[in-house]
Amino acid sequence: MAKVKRLGIIMNGVTGRMGMNQHLIRSIVAIRKDGGVALKNGARVMPDPILIGRDAGKLEALAKAHGIERWSTDLDAALKNKDDELFFDAATTAMRAGLLKKAIAAGKHVYCEKPVAENVKDALDVARLAKKAGIKHGVVQDKLFLPGLRKLKMVIDSGFMGKLLSVRGEFGYWVFEGDLQPIQRPSWNYRLKDGGGIILDMLCHWRYVLDNIFGEVQSVSCLGATHIPKRWDEDGKPYKADADDAAYATFQLAGGVIAQINSSWVTRVRRDDLVTFHVDGTHGSAVAGLQKCWTQARVNTPKPVWNPDIPQPIDFMQTWEEVPDTQVYDNGFRVQWEAFIRHLYDGGPFKWDLLAGAKGVQLAEAGLKSWKERRWIDIEPLKV
Amino acid sequence: MAKVKRLGIIMNGVTGRMGMNQHLIRSIVAIRKDGGVALKNGARVMPDPILIGRDAGKLEALAKAHGIERWSTDLDAALKNKDDELFFDAATTAMRAGLLKKAIAAGKHVYCEKPVAENVKDALDVARLAKKAGIKHGVVQDKLFLPGLRKLKMVIDSGFMGKLLSVRGEFGYWVFEGDLQPIQRPSWNYRLKDGGGIILDMLCHWRYVLDNIFGEVQSVSCLGATHIPKRWDEDGKPYKADADDAAYATFQLAGGVIAQINSSWVTRVRRDDLVTFHVDGTHGSAVAGLQKCWTQARVNTPKPVWNPDIPQPIDFMQTWEEVPDTQVYDNGFRVQWEAFIRHLYDGGPFKWDLLAGAKGVQLAEAGLKSWKERRWIDIEPLKV
Amino acid sequence: MAKVKRLGIIMNGVTGRMGMNQHLIRSIVAIRKDGGVALKNGARVMPDPILIGRDAGKLEALAKAHGIERWSTDLDAALKNKDDELFFDAATTAMRAGLLKKAIAAGKHVYCEKPVAENVKDALDVARLAKKAGIKHGVVQDKLFLPGLRKLKMVIDSGFMGKLLSVRGEFGYWVFEGDLQPIQRPSWNYRLKDGGGIILDMLCHWRYVLDNIFGEVQSVSCLGATHIPKRWDEDGKPYKADADDAAYATFQLAGGVIAQINSSWVTRVRRDDLVTFHVDGTHGSAVAGLQKCWTQARVNTPKPVWNPDIPQPIDFMQTWEEVPDTQVYDNGFRVQWEAFIRHLYDGGPFKWDLLAGAKGVQLAEAGLKSWKERRWIDIEPLKV
Amino acid sequence: MAKVKRLGIIMNGVTGRMGMNQHLIRSIVAIRKDGGVALKNGARVMPDPILIGRDAGKLEALAKAHGIERWSTDLDAALKNKDDELFFDAATTAMRAGLLKKAIAAGKHVYCEKPVAENVKDALDVARLAKKAGIKHGVVQDKLFLPGLRKLKMVIDSGFMGKLLSVRGEFGYWVFEGDLQPIQRPSWNYRLKDGGGIILDMLCHWRYVLDNIFGEVQSVSCLGATHIPKRWDEDGKPYKADADDAAYATFQLAGGVIAQINSSWVTRVRRDDLVTFHVDGTHGSAVAGLQKCWTQARVNTPKPVWNPDIPQPIDFMQTWEEVPDTQVYDNGFRVQWEAFIRHLYDGGPFKWDLLAGAKGVQLAEAGLKSWKERRWIDIEPLKV
Repeated sequence: MAKVKRLGIIMNGVTGRMGMNQHLIRSIVAIRKDGGVALKNGARVMPDPILIGRDAGKLEALAKAHGIERWSTDLDAALKNKDDELFFDAATTAMRAGLLKKAIAAGKHVYCEKPVAENVKDALDVARLAKKAGIKHGVVQDKLFLPGLRKLKMVIDSGFMGKLLSVRGEFGYWVFEGDLQPIQRPSWNYRLKDGGGIILDMLCHWRYVLDNIFGEVQSVSCLGATHIPKRWDEDGKPYKADADDAAYATFQLAGGVIAQINSSWVTRVRRDDLVTFHVDGTHGSAVAGLQKCWTQARVNTPKPVWNPDIPQPIDFMQTWEEVPDTQVYDNGFRVQWEAFIRHLYDGGPFKWDLLAGAKGVQLAEAGLKSWKERRWIDIEPLKV
Repeated sequence: MAKVKRLGIIMNGVTGRMGMNQHLIRSIVAIRKDGGVALKNGARVMPDPILIGRDAGKLEALAKAHGIERWSTDLDAALKNKDDELFFDAATTAMRAGLLKKAIAAGKHVYCEKPVAENVKDALDVARLAKKAGIKHGVVQDKLFLPGLRKLKMVIDSGFMGKLLSVRGEFGYWVFEGDLQPIQRPSWNYRLKDGGGIILDMLCHWRYVLDNIFGEVQSVSCLGATHIPKRWDEDGKPYKADADDAAYATFQLAGGVIAQINSSWVTRVRRDDLVTFHVDGTHGSAVAGLQKCWTQARVNTPKPVWNPDIPQPIDFMQTWEEVPDTQVYDNGFRVQWEAFIRHLYDGGPFKWDLLAGAKGVQLAEAGLKSWKERRWIDIEPLKV
Repeated sequence: MAKVKRLGIIMNGVTGRMGMNQHLIRSIVAIRKDGGVALKNGARVMPDPILIGRDAGKLEALAKAHGIERWSTDLDAALKNKDDELFFDAATTAMRAGLLKKAIAAGKHVYCEKPVAENVKDALDVARLAKKAGIKHGVVQDKLFLPGLRKLKMVIDSGFMGKLLSVRGEFGYWVFEGDLQPIQRPSWNYRLKDGGGIILDMLCHWRYVLDNIFGEVQSVSCLGATHIPKRWDEDGKPYKADADDAAYATFQLAGGVIAQINSSWVTRVRRDDLVTFHVDGTHGSAVAGLQKCWTQARVNTPKPVWNPDIPQPIDFMQTWEEVPDTQVYDNGFRVQWEAFIRHLYDGGPFKWDLLAGAKGVQLAEAGLKSWKERRWIDIEPLKV
Repeated sequence: MAKVKRLGIIMNGVTGRMGMNQHLIRSIVAIRKDGGVALKNGARVMPDPILIGRDAGKLEALAKAHGIERWSTDLDAALKNKDDELFFDAATTAMRAGLLKKAIAAGKHVYCEKPVAENVKDALDVARLAKKAGIKHGVVQDKLFLPGLRKLKMVIDSGFMGKLLSVRGEFGYWVFEGDLQPIQRPSWNYRLKDGGGIILDMLCHWRYVLDNIFGEVQSVSCLGATHIPKRWDEDGKPYKADADDAAYATFQLAGGVIAQINSSWVTRVRRDDLVTFHVDGTHGSAVAGLQKCWTQARVNTPKPVWNPDIPQPIDFMQTWEEVPDTQVYDNGFRVQWEAFIRHLYDGGPFKWDLLAGAKGVQLAEAGLKSWKERRWIDIEPLKV
């Protein structure tokens, strides 16, 4: 029987929606049920989490519901436990950099949600401390593990598309104002003082998506907007929405690729999915949603005629071919957890690290600066 | 029986594809067959064209094919004929401003294709001469008369959308390089020295579309690209394509509306039509193609859930309702021809004039400048 | 931890189908399972019912099945218990007014099924006693809480429809006579001496639906009919059905809206649902069933052509767009129970009260009078 | 070879839309092409029309287009021609009674569109003159010959439905106001002074439909409305619409059948067709549109359950069975023309005569009176 190693994980902020559903239940609990993570040498790593938070009642209930023995409201005490080697954080952005520093000082490896900090300086500080301490570190980059984007990357890697030319991204949907229909996102997303704003939220994502799939980001031009200035909160009370709820951004990538991505909470969806990437290359094109991906090869490209006198005779949705499922696509959060755990034991490079996290913050900052100064902002190389 | 007036029209450049098909055959010849244009007072105007061009053989054949008695290769002589009151030009852009000036000097009314000139200065010069001469003038703005855009305007005018927030435009399709499949656009479009480039071509259109339907353009940020640097021409010979073949532009409009429009000859189409405008408003959204238009009201807006673990359960193409045909939509070029002819006799304002034409050139110039200087360019008010 | 208050409820008539399923099981028992009703101040109210009825065996079994400790056949004794503050009645109409008076005299708050009395005079008497006693009171108006009607109200409130013009209601289905198929409604519904008749039953409902959603009822013209004069009862015995089994009514509402509603137990259904309301407004129309709602905006209205020589080319069911679910719609009876319980503690207005109940009875009376006198009957304002 | 008789017909008012398309082209011209109408004795009757109107140009063009030799603007002269035995009128209602009297005085048989007169008195006068003169007469009742209504009548006649109980009719569609979309009905329909109003238009139709298919009309209660008080006319000019644009009517028919019919130009259609009749009988039900008819037998009647907690599980459109085409359904106007022509030669009763026409006017008058007096109006028997 394979040797089983225990991995003690201090999990902070898993009573929130994302932390609980994706990181705890869909990742750590699921890995435990499946007997842990297999390493190269055949050994298995079994995560042993201790849940950390402020609300003892919630923690206890959550732990009990999922067969977890340890929980606590005392993070400092938890960090002192030498048997727990990894610190994970999915709590609020404002606290993140401070907590990471504390954990690094305590000698823990760290893994966390994005954004890693509220600004680039803090993000780099954390990355430098981690390097100095020699600990291992990772940052969640979940969109890379969406089946649709994984298929898209496979299509690109196959050479199907030839030289990449351009990317069009559309992200978003209509977030209800709260007067007629109940809201489906927290109201703080729309208040600047609470850390809201779609640029800060989404440009962190676009950085790693662009860097990893299409080409390193070199420059950004971004226009934000607050299209809906009045919304109603969780209690049905109106409030002033002053954060940006839409961002119209264009990016220049290494290799001459141009990416134009609109992010919006105030658009009604008429496309394949909530996020889509339309990529054109010399030899073919591809469009990816969260789960699916479609392609059109050079030789299958139709020859449309611009004729204003007749309805378009081509059904352009029917001229693409779907990329089929050729494997089981596990939950993306879990896939990255497993990769990070193997990285802890097997070593080797791990590209989705604190520096990558800092780059996400850098792009969000540059986007906001571009909006303010009404010009293109170049993205300087970051290093630790 | 209704009185019939003759309108002598000097038509220059109608041996080209657009001039021949849309302006001559679908407009002037069709109007003649239907007994002319009806005026307010019940009288009818019958166009009597003389076709002008360089190739006598083509002119004669074309005239004969469509029952037209007059043609000539001598424009100067034609301009001297006092019985022909209107000069029309659909020949090359490079010559246009000069020809218009000559026609105005000869006392003719003028009507022409866009762009009215190669730069704003020339365009304004022509407009000023026209004003001084007191002649009537118009510039083709055909996209406004596409059924899809007319339906879209009707939807906006009806109040269905509430306050307009944003516009996303996608124009284009894949223009074959010429090595595998025959090209479907003239090769000069891809050479700078011949007046090619998609910014010059399309931003003239976007100016009047935006101004007339969504709000006056106030600012532009535009990034051009030459994605395909080598193409094959009409003779199958390779050439260097140095003109911009794609443009990624964002516009700020009066009233706070943001328009983001991508124009491209190097993209494969996965959407409703060759050009689509997706417009979001507080109370509803609409998407228009050339012929069709779809809407989604606030109360019909679905509530999508971001769940990376299941395929998108909502078919977002099915949550929109088509705007039905409630009238016959004549050819848009003809509709504008009829409006201009009525303007000649009935008087009254005509909004699609040489100043509007100059504004189109202005936006194209600003787009090119924005690309070069990597910043937003404000659009100053033009006046004659 | 939140404070929990006990609310003692004397529940009369919950062994019947509606009382048991909707009021006891789907409302009170479900609220108890979910930890009570949350008040504004964070406290929770836990209902503690005592079941009252005639059949001790049924009561005991029902109580036991749902974890309820108290039941009794002695209503008078129950009313004397000062710890039970609310009296609820869902027993027969004939007894209702008397029971309500008794409960009010005992100082109880009251909540009950409709009709609140057999005639307006009795209904107003009860309302006046309640006012004098200063107790809180409510009457079930369940149709208002159907998801379809809630969506319809949202559509109207959103302004989608512009000015309301007219309402067409179709209620009903075929109730089997009992000779071939088993009956699916109790036989007393079809006997006048037992309080049967569709006018008395349904016009109480239409009053609050019309008043709350479309406009206060001002006038009614109603034609009743007994289409099927012979039926078979629960024991398979034929009886004379002398109560009205269909009603064809037209209503004039405040604001000039006209509502035409047919109610029938002798019609075979070819429409979206068992009850449908088709509402036309200047800017749009909507059709609501029990659960669903569809809309058609002014700009999406098709232009049909009357051509007797070809089958209708438009599929009129496909030109409407569904109003999507944007929230969870709890059982409507429970929603109103929770609102009434919050009203007991948090105060504030409660529009579905005994006066509203009296108005329902008033409309039924007016409908019967209109039928008899063959003319329109105006609805006088009621007050307590 | 069969003997061919010539029938000279003076056709007045066939330059209008209905007269031209349905009576001239689809009926008389089509009959001529098919070799005339076959009589019982094998002889054939060939119509030989003379077209009468005011606009000589239109008449000449129309005659020429359809191979008709005779046309004239002088009706009086035409009536003097002894060789033309039948007078037909499809011109304006206001002139009809006068023209019919003149034709009868000239000894012609008469056939005409509805309404036969502007009021009952005039209608009866004409009928009496016709009787006295001993001529043959008919009035168009086209809806009876719609395939959908013919199938419905066949279903009723077959006994499928048992005893008829009730009829629900819905007629209408949305007539555009003219500000956004072009109008699709003439503007005079919406002005009282020009003879507009839906009650006058449609109740003439409902009279013969009800009398012939379901039972003689005995009583009517009708509420009219002018829902849209402002419209735009053929020239785009706003005008005050003061005629009734909707009518909500209930009818009591012989045999105890109740018919409830809504007619409206201000409703958006969600049903099988532009007009539908839903008929319930003891043994089965049927729904008819213009072309199609569906039935549901007693034994196929579903047993729906009223459950507010789940979406309706029954698709009520799928529980009906279509009545198939078992014959070719000729154009209804032609069918009645052929029947009338056979009546001229073969004799026998013809039920769609001037008295039937007078009954239609009578019902419209009674409907208007009911609206004004807010009560049921009985329909007295008419006789000549």
